Amino acid sequence: MKKNFIYHEIAGNIANKIKTGVLKEGERLPSVRMLSKEHGISVNTAKRVFLELEAQSLAQSKPQSGYFVSPLSYLKLPLPEASKPLPITNNKEPNDLINGVYSTMGRHDLTLFSIGVPSGNILPLAKLKKEIVLATRSLKEGGTEYEPLQGNIKLRRMVAVRSLAWEGWLKEDDVITTNGCMNALALCLIAVTKPGDTIALESPCYPGILQLAVSMGLHVLEVATHPVSGIDIDALKKLLPKINVCLLVPNFNTPLGYCMPDKNKKEIVSLLAEYDIPLIEDDTYGDIHFDPERPKCCKSFDTDGNVLWCGSVSKTLAPGYRVGWIAPGKYKEQILKLKLIHAISSTSIIHEAVGNFLMSGRYDNHLRHFRKTLQENYQRYALAISLYFPEGTKISRPQGGLALWVEFPKHIDTAELYNYALKKQISIAPGRMFTLQNQFQHCMRLCIGLPWTEDLGLKLKQLGTLAKMLG
Amino acid sequence: MKKNFIYHEIAGNIANKIKTGVLKEGERLPSVRMLSKEHGISVNTAKRVFLELEAQSLAQSKPQSGYFVSPLSYLKLPLPEASKPLPITNNKEPNDLINGVYSTMGRHDLTLFSIGVPSGNILPLAKLKKEIVLATRSLKEGGTEYEPLQGNIKLRRMVAVRSLAWEGWLKEDDVITTNGCMNALALCLIAVTKPGDTIALESPCYPGILQLAVSMGLHVLEVATHPVSGIDIDALKKLLPKINVCLLVPNFNTPLGYCMPDKNKKEIVSLLAEYDIPLIEDDTYGDIHFDPERPKCCKSFDTDGNVLWCGSVSKTLAPGYRVGWIAPGKYKEQILKLKLIHAISSTSIIHEAVGNFLMSGRYDNHLRHFRKTLQENYQRYALAISLYFPEGTKISRPQGGLALWVEFPKHIDTAELYNYALKKQISIAPGRMFTLQNQFQHCMRLCIGLPWTEDLGLKLKQLGTLAKMLG
Repeated sequence: MKKNFIYHEIAGNIANKIKTGVLKEGERLPSVRMLSKEHGISVNTAKRVFLELEAQSLAQSKPQSGYFVSPLSYLKLPLPEASKPLPITNNKEPNDLINGVYSTMGRHDLTLFSIGVPSGNILPLAKLKKEIVLATRSLKEGGTEYEPLQGNIKLRRMVAVRSLAWEGWLKEDDVITTNGCMNALALCLIAVTKPGDTIALESPCYPGILQLAVSMGLHVLEVATHPVSGIDIDALKKLLPKINVCLLVPNFNTPLGYCMPDKNKKEIVSLLAEYDIPLIEDDTYGDIHFDPERPKCCKSFDTDGNVLWCGSVSKTLAPGYRVGWIAPGKYKEQILKLKLIHAISSTSIIHEAVGNFLMSGRYDNHLRHFRKTLQENYQRYALAISLYFPEGTKISRPQGGLALWVEFPKHIDTAELYNYALKKQISIAPGRMFTLQNQFQHCMRLCIGLPWTEDLGLKLKQLGTLAKMLG
Repeated sequence: MKKNFIYHEIAGNIANKIKTGVLKEGERLPSVRMLSKEHGISVNTAKRVFLELEAQSLAQSKPQSGYFVSPLSYLKLPLPEASKPLPITNNKEPNDLINGVYSTMGRHDLTLFSIGVPSGNILPLAKLKKEIVLATRSLKEGGTEYEPLQGNIKLRRMVAVRSLAWEGWLKEDDVITTNGCMNALALCLIAVTKPGDTIALESPCYPGILQLAVSMGLHVLEVATHPVSGIDIDALKKLLPKINVCLLVPNFNTPLGYCMPDKNKKEIVSLLAEYDIPLIEDDTYGDIHFDPERPKCCKSFDTDGNVLWCGSVSKTLAPGYRVGWIAPGKYKEQILKLKLIHAISSTSIIHEAVGNFLMSGRYDNHLRHFRKTLQENYQRYALAISLYFPEGTKISRPQGGLALWVEFPKHIDTAELYNYALKKQISIAPGRMFTLQNQFQHCMRLCIGLPWTEDLGLKLKQLGTLAKMLG
């Protein structure tokens, strides 16, 4: 298994050097022969390394001269600013924006840059269908029965098995299934908070999480983040005495796409444990890593059950299936009780189908293609933005996930852009949705989970033209 | 359509006269000819009336003499006492009992009298399977997409259409789908309460509802009920100044199986509206009426949107599907927002499949058989109880639904019975689960949704023997 993907690993290392500027635009890459010798791999494998880099638009071949680093004009777009939310709790919910954007869910007449889900075109639809049909046949009573309370055993087992890749060492008995990840986060918050408590969240933050916290009567502290490394630990430290719970999306956070370095994850877990503050970790994007390796989680460093780790297949397989899970650490009993109260059971057939799909080994195969598609999409989006968007536009460098964060010059109001774009059948997620404070009005999130077509490029061009018009 | 079921209606009227004692045991029933003349129906239709009564064990034929009222020994079992909970709020949750009972969910080695769901044997499994397969084919992207926020349009439309039968006059836009009925009730309670509020519930009450209320930090007032007519309106009136919300299961309440008379429904709706107290109505059993007619709901009398009416197919089609709904009246916006936060979407495929199943007209056909089976089960259970249970045992007279409430003589402790029964692979729901107070320790709920077999009769006999042993 491993041998097959050596080329993938080597390509990943070279790709990183290009993206971080160690290898410069136009620079010559080692020859096939050199690469083969250096890594002890066959010439064919070495060739695959370059094909991989080429597919990612990172390298290009020149006849008779070998491979060179591609001109990466989009990488010259600056990074968005590090966020600087006010150290206050604030409940100015952008309800109108959120209602507007989410009311477009399921509309096929729009280009939905706004909703952070993968398009069906890049999902293994036929195989999933098959699993569902099989589940209606193989389950007792055709799946009309309640599941056991803790959830489908195959699904729980596979979540546990897969946790080895990020050193989570979960056992199936550590896992409770849920109706998707938002349901998991809601159960966690109900379990560990009471109204009036204070929650620390990353800024910018997924609107659903903000709304959940506000609806539960929590005071929200938005914490500064850096667009590459995530939450600012020093900023978090200062707030620790005030907070009762922390909810983070450390891996391929939406909207910023960053991946918190292991060192930071470890430090945060230990800090929060010290203050006895539970950490709810949303790892729903963890499997969508653009680098070859699956990142660790905060849960990887959890020694005393203080981390409630949540995940789902909503961003990698099927948003509409509602399949998620929690490894709630020491909060297991509370979560089980809440699951019984709020849901009784998950949808037996669908959870069985996903459990079987994961067991079949098809998931990893799908993920490989899926990640590559998303990474290529990111690069194509970035190229289009560098060509068509107003001067001074900045973009995030997603290391995985489904989101690209765009920061326009200050005077461009994305709530206004939203209205103009909608008239052209384009929906975006304005930045103000991602905060309860007055910030990010000149930012927006684009979903990169739409399949790339010429038309999609034109839609980005149209967006850029509209933004310039507003500028 | 209507003509076909005249015999059903006439049989229902006669059945009522038998059950209420207007027609006595052994009394001669009118002849086929008389019945045909009296109602202007054919002789064949009149014969069907008697076949129907015979199937319900209410009538028996004697050769050459016609039909007579069967000996209904079980109807001589007294009714349970009217409940008299203390007028205090109390949070003594019977957690151990509840955990024990619900941990048996999904176990096929036990006879589950404890879980209030219909067995797969009496559900239209093949047709449901077919609808699921069709939904994976007909839905865009194989049903992997999120639904529109308000939920599947076919399902909402059919809930609206079906509301005509109980004079609900709902439109599809009044309905929001949910992941089953407990999820619906949870969303309603989150929408209309804050921690510290006081909720009025029926006593005895479904454990999930008690747990939900307690987990949300509500003070629970259990209100006295009568085993035939439901909540005691005078008792409720006295509590009105203290309560913030009322949650009732007026139709075929679990565990007592009563159906609140229309007059009471109307009065309660108007009382609560006067005090501006929202009424959450759990109508999940409303379609399981043993009498020919579908009962009205409190919602039928709601003129100002104060009633949040909830339902599901969990008790009639498929517990494991998680398909429910709310008609939230004036709370629609709040419920939609909470649905987005807590669930984002329901399971697209399953909701589409159920929507199509309801549209096909198969649901009514299924319900007719289903109700008949449950009513026959009730009568068979009652007969077995009258034969095998300790002297002094009382039972409810379910007018529909899935539950039979058994009240033993005071000295029999059903928590103890639970433990003994489990050793014989029988699970029951002890009465203490249905209250936060110290009451109902000598009661239990039996699910009548299991298919009748000789073996099931023997299990009831075993239960009776164990109870006698404890007495």
